[in-house]
Amino acid sequence: MTQMRMEHDSLGEVAVPGNAYYGVQTRRALDNFHISGIPMSHYPRMINALAYVKMAAAEANASLGLLDEDKCRAICRACEDILDGRLHDQFVVDVIQGGAGTSANMNANEVVCNRALEFLGHAKGEYEHLHPLNHVNMSQSTNDVYPSALNIALILDIRELVDAMAYLRKAFKRKGEEFADVLKMGRTQLQDAVPMTLGQEFSAWAVTIGEDIQRLDEAQALVHEINMGATAIGTGLNSHPDYARTVTEKLVQLTTLQLVSSPDLVEATQDTGAYVQLSGVLKRAAVKLSKICNDLRLLSSGPRCGLNEINLPPMQPGSSIMPGKVNPVIPEVVNQVAFTVVGHDMTVTMACEAGQLELNVMEPVIGYSLFQSMNMLRRACLTLADKCVLGITANRERCRELVEHSIGLVTALNPYIGYEKAAEIAKEAMKTGGSVYGIVLEKGYLSREELDDILKPENMVKPRYVHRP
Amino acid sequence: MTQMRMEHDSLGEVAVPGNAYYGVQTRRALDNFHISGIPMSHYPRMINALAYVKMAAAEANASLGLLDEDKCRAICRACEDILDGRLHDQFVVDVIQGGAGTSANMNANEVVCNRALEFLGHAKGEYEHLHPLNHVNMSQSTNDVYPSALNIALILDIRELVDAMAYLRKAFKRKGEEFADVLKMGRTQLQDAVPMTLGQEFSAWAVTIGEDIQRLDEAQALVHEINMGATAIGTGLNSHPDYARTVTEKLVQLTTLQLVSSPDLVEATQDTGAYVQLSGVLKRAAVKLSKICNDLRLLSSGPRCGLNEINLPPMQPGSSIMPGKVNPVIPEVVNQVAFTVVGHDMTVTMACEAGQLELNVMEPVIGYSLFQSMNMLRRACLTLADKCVLGITANRERCRELVEHSIGLVTALNPYIGYEKAAEIAKEAMKTGGSVYGIVLEKGYLSREELDDILKPENMVKPRYVHRP
Amino acid sequence: MTQMRMEHDSLGEVAVPGNAYYGVQTRRALDNFHISGIPMSHYPRMINALAYVKMAAAEANASLGLLDEDKCRAICRACEDILDGRLHDQFVVDVIQGGAGTSANMNANEVVCNRALEFLGHAKGEYEHLHPLNHVNMSQSTNDVYPSALNIALILDIRELVDAMAYLRKAFKRKGEEFADVLKMGRTQLQDAVPMTLGQEFSAWAVTIGEDIQRLDEAQALVHEINMGATAIGTGLNSHPDYARTVTEKLVQLTTLQLVSSPDLVEATQDTGAYVQLSGVLKRAAVKLSKICNDLRLLSSGPRCGLNEINLPPMQPGSSIMPGKVNPVIPEVVNQVAFTVVGHDMTVTMACEAGQLELNVMEPVIGYSLFQSMNMLRRACLTLADKCVLGITANRERCRELVEHSIGLVTALNPYIGYEKAAEIAKEAMKTGGSVYGIVLEKGYLSREELDDILKPENMVKPRYVHRP
Amino acid sequence: MTQMRMEHDSLGEVAVPGNAYYGVQTRRALDNFHISGIPMSHYPRMINALAYVKMAAAEANASLGLLDEDKCRAICRACEDILDGRLHDQFVVDVIQGGAGTSANMNANEVVCNRALEFLGHAKGEYEHLHPLNHVNMSQSTNDVYPSALNIALILDIRELVDAMAYLRKAFKRKGEEFADVLKMGRTQLQDAVPMTLGQEFSAWAVTIGEDIQRLDEAQALVHEINMGATAIGTGLNSHPDYARTVTEKLVQLTTLQLVSSPDLVEATQDTGAYVQLSGVLKRAAVKLSKICNDLRLLSSGPRCGLNEINLPPMQPGSSIMPGKVNPVIPEVVNQVAFTVVGHDMTVTMACEAGQLELNVMEPVIGYSLFQSMNMLRRACLTLADKCVLGITANRERCRELVEHSIGLVTALNPYIGYEKAAEIAKEAMKTGGSVYGIVLEKGYLSREELDDILKPENMVKPRYVHRP
Repeated sequence: MTQMRMEHDSLGEVAVPGNAYYGVQTRRALDNFHISGIPMSHYPRMINALAYVKMAAAEANASLGLLDEDKCRAICRACEDILDGRLHDQFVVDVIQGGAGTSANMNANEVVCNRALEFLGHAKGEYEHLHPLNHVNMSQSTNDVYPSALNIALILDIRELVDAMAYLRKAFKRKGEEFADVLKMGRTQLQDAVPMTLGQEFSAWAVTIGEDIQRLDEAQALVHEINMGATAIGTGLNSHPDYARTVTEKLVQLTTLQLVSSPDLVEATQDTGAYVQLSGVLKRAAVKLSKICNDLRLLSSGPRCGLNEINLPPMQPGSSIMPGKVNPVIPEVVNQVAFTVVGHDMTVTMACEAGQLELNVMEPVIGYSLFQSMNMLRRACLTLADKCVLGITANRERCRELVEHSIGLVTALNPYIGYEKAAEIAKEAMKTGGSVYGIVLEKGYLSREELDDILKPENMVKPRYVHRP
Repeated sequence: MTQMRMEHDSLGEVAVPGNAYYGVQTRRALDNFHISGIPMSHYPRMINALAYVKMAAAEANASLGLLDEDKCRAICRACEDILDGRLHDQFVVDVIQGGAGTSANMNANEVVCNRALEFLGHAKGEYEHLHPLNHVNMSQSTNDVYPSALNIALILDIRELVDAMAYLRKAFKRKGEEFADVLKMGRTQLQDAVPMTLGQEFSAWAVTIGEDIQRLDEAQALVHEINMGATAIGTGLNSHPDYARTVTEKLVQLTTLQLVSSPDLVEATQDTGAYVQLSGVLKRAAVKLSKICNDLRLLSSGPRCGLNEINLPPMQPGSSIMPGKVNPVIPEVVNQVAFTVVGHDMTVTMACEAGQLELNVMEPVIGYSLFQSMNMLRRACLTLADKCVLGITANRERCRELVEHSIGLVTALNPYIGYEKAAEIAKEAMKTGGSVYGIVLEKGYLSREELDDILKPENMVKPRYVHRP
Repeated sequence: MTQMRMEHDSLGEVAVPGNAYYGVQTRRALDNFHISGIPMSHYPRMINALAYVKMAAAEANASLGLLDEDKCRAICRACEDILDGRLHDQFVVDVIQGGAGTSANMNANEVVCNRALEFLGHAKGEYEHLHPLNHVNMSQSTNDVYPSALNIALILDIRELVDAMAYLRKAFKRKGEEFADVLKMGRTQLQDAVPMTLGQEFSAWAVTIGEDIQRLDEAQALVHEINMGATAIGTGLNSHPDYARTVTEKLVQLTTLQLVSSPDLVEATQDTGAYVQLSGVLKRAAVKLSKICNDLRLLSSGPRCGLNEINLPPMQPGSSIMPGKVNPVIPEVVNQVAFTVVGHDMTVTMACEAGQLELNVMEPVIGYSLFQSMNMLRRACLTLADKCVLGITANRERCRELVEHSIGLVTALNPYIGYEKAAEIAKEAMKTGGSVYGIVLEKGYLSREELDDILKPENMVKPRYVHRP
Repeated sequence: MTQMRMEHDSLGEVAVPGNAYYGVQTRRALDNFHISGIPMSHYPRMINALAYVKMAAAEANASLGLLDEDKCRAICRACEDILDGRLHDQFVVDVIQGGAGTSANMNANEVVCNRALEFLGHAKGEYEHLHPLNHVNMSQSTNDVYPSALNIALILDIRELVDAMAYLRKAFKRKGEEFADVLKMGRTQLQDAVPMTLGQEFSAWAVTIGEDIQRLDEAQALVHEINMGATAIGTGLNSHPDYARTVTEKLVQLTTLQLVSSPDLVEATQDTGAYVQLSGVLKRAAVKLSKICNDLRLLSSGPRCGLNEINLPPMQPGSSIMPGKVNPVIPEVVNQVAFTVVGHDMTVTMACEAGQLELNVMEPVIGYSLFQSMNMLRRACLTLADKCVLGITANRERCRELVEHSIGLVTALNPYIGYEKAAEIAKEAMKTGGSVYGIVLEKGYLSREELDDILKPENMVKPRYVHRP
């Protein structure tokens, strides 16, 4: 049986497993929040970010003469342990929790404190030598610690997501180059429109993803603003006048991120605008990715009763009843990720709206939703690139045949014979099943030479000087 | 220049146009709420519903001995005027308003009062003879009047929507019968699956819409519960113990709707659950309608580079640049309506969540969103039926050709040769471009007679007794 | 090192761990879908539901003479193993997957098959004796297996959620009785309104939750409709004409649930309306729960600078910087659950809209979102009841003092002195800080006896016969 | 009776009112789209933007030698008429329409053409002299005209919205200065926290709105990218190689906006990312505005049973039953606007996701939703500033009294006596109803001088050098 130790807080005594680095408040939170079933340790970046914050605070307090050098050193060593990947299993509270992250912060305070106590030669729980609140949490409040740590973790996650998106962008770009000479029909409203190249189609998707990367970079910039030094409500109560500046500098040094201190800490402590913005940009990236996947599924529909312009690489047999069926399972799973991200955005939106007065207590669900969205989007991008896009092949003959058979070619005749005659030809082609080329010739509107020049599909995929008659 | 008359309320004096039936509080609301630009008169059913409520309240008060018969009669005559379609232009306040509908209720009180004053031989504004609050609003509060009137108006709107949906359902059903013998490929995940009839496809959509009609009927039932007699917060303060029952009976008589009084008026006055439920059902109907429209657009894609199984009736030239292009503009507009309804559901959801303590002050935006959704859905259903579904034609040969050419037929061989051999045949057909029929024959797995029987598409559109070898 | 065995499917050979009960297709799915990181085994009800389906199908096939008794018995024994909680760790595919659940179905087919092979005296992978597709999946397709299993799992989850909601309802009801005589001010729009009892407030919340239970029961009824026998697209291809009926009867016997076969299997196979409906009802329950939690937080605000009418039981120290602060952490976490459920509803909505033609391929994310919402809501209800509601105490004196001090009492004077005089009194009370009682007396509008009777708060919490002067 | 004239298009002949400037295609669209009931003329900026586009295209075509100078001049004069506010009533098609805006573009082509025909001395409908498609729409397609015009209209709307937000920001800022010396309790999680000034509270809101203005400016920049020259699908078919550059330059001159041509016109024609981004930013602004309004309603709750720290200016009597009640109707209506904007964002999100291949046909509902959101937000900001914020007054004594009475002051003692002793004092204060000051003195933890210095509220609203014992 586990040996227990007794700890107390203002509500009374609680037994804590003797070998646990967490303490009484973590223990209470474990009892209170059995909601998502996901412990904080599931998000190691958030834990590391908390370690950075605790270390920076200790150093700032020491440099301002508020914390003994010994205590500071012990705290910093404990934080380094965490950053080295140790003690993560001690971060046990549910990621979705009441209290604006107080339990997460207390979990961090207690783990750091008990590890530091060991470095100082004391047993866990001997808080008279080093106290989780008076020392580890000195000059801090959950209300500045939690969002600041969240921001640091988000920045790292955004970067990783951007890398995955860049990888996907490159995959589309490469395919765009490979398919540069594959002529095909463009479609608007699912109706045959005018010719283009398959390369233009894939390149456009690369551009789309590139633009979302830019938006993510902009959103990332906002998250660099932190509110350390705000303490409880942004007024900086119980902090030294130089503390906000100092702790931010320390954090910049430790993380090498270009963090800045919010110019208005009261505002920063209640506002979650940066998270809504980030979430909105993730939603944007998601729906555009979903649109691209819809297109991939459309273009690869068939094999015989669909568009069948491209082939997605077969990843698994498609059906438990239809032999030989191969389904676009990778784009399909990306669609589902996109819908999830849109859902998370709604959660973040409502959580942001629910802030009241000096604090937004819903930050834990905001953080959780953002982490989930970024993780899933990142995996979706890598999966889509590796297991789908890079293996796509084009059905060149099929593509060209559709173009040549198409009535949409008639559009190119507008400048020469006018919209109304062109429409008449289209109508006749539809009725008779004939070709545009044949009907124009037959009607004698243009000579064979003119037609050959105008209707050559290769001439139709970019602007062209038109001599109007 | 308009002659003005002066009216006052507890905040002071205000000039009102002399010929206006509305009074001081409506005038203030006009100044305060310039938000949507849409006056209440845009929703005549809501105005009539308010007239019903005021009439029922007057009759209930009179029957309980609380209101003079003369006053009651005058109030009722004024309400009848409104129900006859007169005075609607006097309902001028913006549909989106603060105050939980107080301005709407006051607008009704004032119009009814001033019209009743005329019937009593007095001039507008002579409230000493009949008072908008003391008499027209007697035993009432905005907090029971507004939601009760809203419910009455919603019921009528739901009924009209249900009629439109029934009309659309019938259109799909009729087409289902017309296309009962059109054999075509079914598709799952946009990949060729197994044969079915176009009739089955259209009939399924009819069933889908029929189910949504059932859900709307259920949601409608919830809206029949009203909270008249609740007065301010559901405690019934200032109402006679028999009033809630009496006024509800009067309303049932006047409207012929099966309205019932909420068993817990405190709960009913703060809860907007019936609206969220209704909105959720509208959202459900919308996304399913959107799915059907997506399918219509897919099946009619082409004419030469798409599926081209059906033709939507051409409603307008499709393009300002591409002659002869005809687009699926009707399904497209229905998709957009669906997205709007989903958006409104989000608005209703947030508005419901924002209720506080004894009242949900966001009811005006809830009502507005529901009215918008129902109006747009109704028009969308009628438009879709009349301008699209009823004119759809099938490309029978194209449909059959796709089936016969398809590899999906191989599924029917499973019971005879097993999944793995069937998959092998499918693979070879893909590679060589050959037909399933030919390859099986060639391999000698089954005799020509067996194959003819098994692969006959007509045999594949329903369950069939299989003798396994 | 793990011994591997080789398996193959139509795409080629793949190595599978020798001791794994799953096979080649599960192995491919593991590679393809690394998205949510959550394996199917996280939802044991879904796995059991798949076992029920496989067992019912085997029995139906055997009874129709299509499957050997020996094979049927072995399959059923394997399914019983799963239902006994064994082999769940073999369900390894990611819950969010492309392919409409094909990987989940194949995972089930393979695990059942390999366990059954053992019962038949063969080694895992010796599919020549019993085949995952030809036998375990006989007469089935992912497109009927997956949604039918999903429905069974959902029904069980809904029931458990309903139990939790009933428990919460009872907690509110009990508190409603306990606080039946606590007089307090009602508030509308956060402004002082008229008196009520705290018991009425808590009872209303019990009613609210009771109504949501009814809605869940209705939504549950819809999920009882299953599409077994639809096979690929609802046409029942490759199934015996009596199979749909038979397999449904078997499932009813096995599960003791009142499952029914869809009247239109083509419709049922493509429609996800029942899921949108269920999700909409969950959303409704969530926002109303959120509203109640907002109210609990409002009423317990303070202790000295807020409303302070009730005390929530202190669950943990509230702040890492503010000593003695106790926060409403339980309602706060329930709010966050509610926002998550609203987000999931959006995901389900988009996934439903994305169905195409004969199938909705997005079912996995629909199932995942619904399971998450129900699990979190259930935990939230239990947590709220046990860790908050049942421990709430009332500050009776504070409540009564606010009532007596209030200007809202003036409303009760309307029937006696009219709205305008009452408003004048209210205004004077505001300006002077005086009491309604005192000002009326001073003005001589009513006698002391009349006033004592009218303004007695106890007389104001329900309708009352009013003798108008 | 109106005289009619006959016009024809590829679908046949249609009668058009003889005096109408619109023609056959507008007439068809009128019949087809009876959805929102809102004609294009409701958005004059969109009509003007179309006029700018048509004028720029004519000038570009003329300068490239493709259009006669006479025709160009006539077209430009017609466009100027529109820009002068004439002919707007001729823009009759429903704002929500199928066809990706084709009807809107055709409406513009026809009105411009018929007005230009008059300038050229011809009758309406004599299209042999000037043709709506061949000349007015030359080198254009709906697919570049509609989004380009939409962008121009959006830019102007964004600017106006930003002005309104700046006005509101200034109102909050002014109040922040006015209330700089009003000491009050800060609240986190609705629980008493630590002191701050009311000025800090109002200033923070000004900062919040200022940040949203920055986000809107960024979103606005994205909308400056237009795709003129794309024609049907971005390939520029039927346009001169210099056309895209030329027409963009002309548009820059005409509008004086810094419009730029998209670097990838294929991508630009299918992508609606800029709209999702803009909508997301509007949603962000909306939820933050809603949060601020929630705060205003909280702080002004009462008058006697709430927080009552501030007074909102009374705009209208608050209740039809409760005399003297004054409600926060302006913040309430702003909340409702916010929920509407969130709903619109969902609509835009789904519409964006629904784009297919070379075009997003859902642009009309995107445009409509954005216009609605911006108009309503703009009005909400102006209304909030003028009818609420600028008239707010502070209840200084009440605010100060709450601070002095508060237990939250105990936080300031942490650095001197440690968290645990401070918590013990808080607990005793709660239990006994005593003051922090008194209890500390009594316990002798600090001297009266120390306490006077530490607990002086004015010392608690900013960081302060702490000499730790």
